[in-house]
Amino acid sequence: MSYSALEQHFEQLHHLQHLGAICGWDQATMMPPGGNEARAEALGTLAVLCHRQLQDPRLGDWFARAESEPLSQEQQQSLAEMRRAWRDATLLPADLVRARSLAGSRCEHAWRSLRPANDWAGFLPLFEEVVALSREAAAARSEALGLSRYDSLLELYEPGMRTQALDTLFGELSGWLPGLIAEVQEKQRLETVLSPQGPFATDKQKALGLEVMSWLGFDFHHGRLDVSAHPFCGGVSEDVRLTTRYDEADVAQALMGIIHETGHARYEQGLPAAWRRLPVGQARSMGVHESQSLFFEMQLARHPAFIARLSPLLARYFGDQPAFEPGNLARLYTRVQPGLIRVDADEVTYPAHIMLRYRIERDLIEGTLAPRHLPERWNQLMQQYLGLSTEGNDKDGCLQDIHWTDGSFGYFPSYTLGAIYAAQQAEAMQQQLGPFERLIDDDLTAVFGWLEHHIWRHASLCSTGELMARATGHVLDAAPFRRHLEQRYLG
Amino acid sequence: MSYSALEQHFEQLHHLQHLGAICGWDQATMMPPGGNEARAEALGTLAVLCHRQLQDPRLGDWFARAESEPLSQEQQQSLAEMRRAWRDATLLPADLVRARSLAGSRCEHAWRSLRPANDWAGFLPLFEEVVALSREAAAARSEALGLSRYDSLLELYEPGMRTQALDTLFGELSGWLPGLIAEVQEKQRLETVLSPQGPFATDKQKALGLEVMSWLGFDFHHGRLDVSAHPFCGGVSEDVRLTTRYDEADVAQALMGIIHETGHARYEQGLPAAWRRLPVGQARSMGVHESQSLFFEMQLARHPAFIARLSPLLARYFGDQPAFEPGNLARLYTRVQPGLIRVDADEVTYPAHIMLRYRIERDLIEGTLAPRHLPERWNQLMQQYLGLSTEGNDKDGCLQDIHWTDGSFGYFPSYTLGAIYAAQQAEAMQQQLGPFERLIDDDLTAVFGWLEHHIWRHASLCSTGELMARATGHVLDAAPFRRHLEQRYLG
Repeated sequence: MSYSALEQHFEQLHHLQHLGAICGWDQATMMPPGGNEARAEALGTLAVLCHRQLQDPRLGDWFARAESEPLSQEQQQSLAEMRRAWRDATLLPADLVRARSLAGSRCEHAWRSLRPANDWAGFLPLFEEVVALSREAAAARSEALGLSRYDSLLELYEPGMRTQALDTLFGELSGWLPGLIAEVQEKQRLETVLSPQGPFATDKQKALGLEVMSWLGFDFHHGRLDVSAHPFCGGVSEDVRLTTRYDEADVAQALMGIIHETGHARYEQGLPAAWRRLPVGQARSMGVHESQSLFFEMQLARHPAFIARLSPLLARYFGDQPAFEPGNLARLYTRVQPGLIRVDADEVTYPAHIMLRYRIERDLIEGTLAPRHLPERWNQLMQQYLGLSTEGNDKDGCLQDIHWTDGSFGYFPSYTLGAIYAAQQAEAMQQQLGPFERLIDDDLTAVFGWLEHHIWRHASLCSTGELMARATGHVLDAAPFRRHLEQRYLG
Repeated sequence: MSYSALEQHFEQLHHLQHLGAICGWDQATMMPPGGNEARAEALGTLAVLCHRQLQDPRLGDWFARAESEPLSQEQQQSLAEMRRAWRDATLLPADLVRARSLAGSRCEHAWRSLRPANDWAGFLPLFEEVVALSREAAAARSEALGLSRYDSLLELYEPGMRTQALDTLFGELSGWLPGLIAEVQEKQRLETVLSPQGPFATDKQKALGLEVMSWLGFDFHHGRLDVSAHPFCGGVSEDVRLTTRYDEADVAQALMGIIHETGHARYEQGLPAAWRRLPVGQARSMGVHESQSLFFEMQLARHPAFIARLSPLLARYFGDQPAFEPGNLARLYTRVQPGLIRVDADEVTYPAHIMLRYRIERDLIEGTLAPRHLPERWNQLMQQYLGLSTEGNDKDGCLQDIHWTDGSFGYFPSYTLGAIYAAQQAEAMQQQLGPFERLIDDDLTAVFGWLEHHIWRHASLCSTGELMARATGHVLDAAPFRRHLEQRYLG
């Protein structure tokens, strides 16, 4: 059967991706600096091999024949997802794939030291190469898919999502968000908030993080926690590699980061075992992935009922202090303050950071913005959206994110899509099961049961729109996100 | 040029092997247990791909044409080493390669828990599969190479070495070694040796190990130190992954293990950068590799001049105690005591462990010993060589080593070949440069300069025989090893 041949072929691809995921994790967490050049070359060759696996000349025949084979509905969807991966791969020549992988590895590695050094000039030539190759890739995809250049990249992370829909969504958000930010700031102006007093020893922070991960159901038989400069959730779904970074002056950064990544991890660990090695068994989209991490970090972890349980934990690990009092923690963890750093942003100002990046990356890819103008453009938009300047401070401006360093243009919108999907899910869940006040307990069974039933186990067995519509009644709806923010911050 | 095409092709192979080396290291040091099945599958697919890379139908043509191209002497040797790798790969069908990789991964993984449980019965079926597949591989190689089955596996680790030469060597050793062991034991019977009193905290042992690695010239820009159940030196030469295990009751185990693995590591880090990605740029043989680790661990680290420098280091990390006095440490580190565990054996009794394994693995592969008789045969030979019993104690008997679990038959002789090569090198070095008493200083420049000049930089640019003859005047000569043992233990 051709469908079986396709399954076997894509399982091999999955094995190669497994090796890449582990070596990529190693590169960010364990590898000594002198190993990078060889690693970049090895990963470059792997990228070519994955690409070649997807360009196997037998695939065309197999796909054609499989169409007329008796397949279950799930197998049909599996076939469609294999076809999509095939289509994406056959659009780009192998040389371009290899060049992008090499340039991305180099730029990302250099960024790790150039960012702290605030060295835009050192970064620019590496970045220009990455942008040029990404534009080339976008042009090739655009022509074949009949999409705009930027949409053709967006399609890689958010299948079905388009610039037009994003412009509508961000237009709507920008209608009410600035007013909301101002109102919340005004309301919070008179609040008293105590900052926890450190230092918070790294080993204790790690122990606390591990305990919270256990509470959140992370399966340590199939994953682990480590340290990297830019936290991520990597590895494979059988062996999820979650990372964080510790700041001994601030316990919230690692803690909230770990909760966030644990949301990603539970999605990965909850994907259906039977489909794990095939495209249809992977996470539906980056936005859905982000909806899980933001569900954990924002909907769940900043809810008063969750904070009431965090409070005694913090006191146990670091000794009691007035700042750990639940009411204070709740005020602290919902503090709204426009700032330069996206990953430190609160959930109210966060969409502004995304709108800024969306406009810039769209223009970089469409060719209406040159990489050398990035710092200036960044500063301009940051002034416009949040009233802040990044002039001469690129390390907290356009150098702050890892995403563009390896050419992941089209990814950023997923963060705000995720926030909106998470709010839709939280509202639907509470309508069906009752308020979080009742659902947040010792093992959070009801919460995880709902997510597993409505999100995790479906992997890519339906479209994002279908997934969200079945789970929440709406495909994409910013209203629950707005209600969530108004209730939490102005309620 | 066909030679250039071959270089490019083998560089790609090297990249795949890089990914395998890092994922293999991860499997032994970092991976949570639930990740093993997926990892074994991924590494199985990688083994097939490496195999396929070596079976590319273009290779035959390229090799034929490259023969008549104008090549430097080094390129000719490079061609010969590529041809050897090609020959080795084309001897075995892809299915067998994959089956061996899968069975080996499973058996090795199970061994990690079966050994501590002393569970021979649980191990046997997995091991029988590994032996059966190894016999199958040996039969195929034997037929093609015109060697005996065991020699055909030996050729993988010690190109050019044969059962006949080993029988001669081990015959010679067994002529004088038992008498030497008895004499040394008699001489040491009346010695007073103090054991250092622990506990020795793991973190301090690690810090000491790192300091000693620095002294021994390990390049931390291109490598790191971690923990695994069975210490090894893995990774790639640009990024050497060294492991150890810590016993808080015994500081010598990790320390000497680290020194041993650092010998392997310096060889890897000292391989010529220009040839690193090709077969000719790899270590010459396992015996030569082991000669470097044993040079570090035995020739160097147990020399009184080295111990005199270790003594104050130990006192600095763990507080002074009488056992750290140099004379006592020298007696302690040269204590000869027949024991069950190979990796804990002193350099005098070690060859007995190897002769035992050599006879067993030769017979397993030639088919004259069935796997189910292994515990019995092990016990019998252990009684014969060292007067010790392993009856009912397989965890300290035939289950103690990792090597056979993944089918690495033919490897064990390399350990004793390494000890003999190391003694040849140490004798030649001292004849040329002066005694170790003068060479062992703050940075060991002269020692490492000699090794780099005579061993490391030659990689596989000549045969083991040529390498050793040029460096020491002899191809393989047990006399320096005997002189070394007699001088150190009876002198």
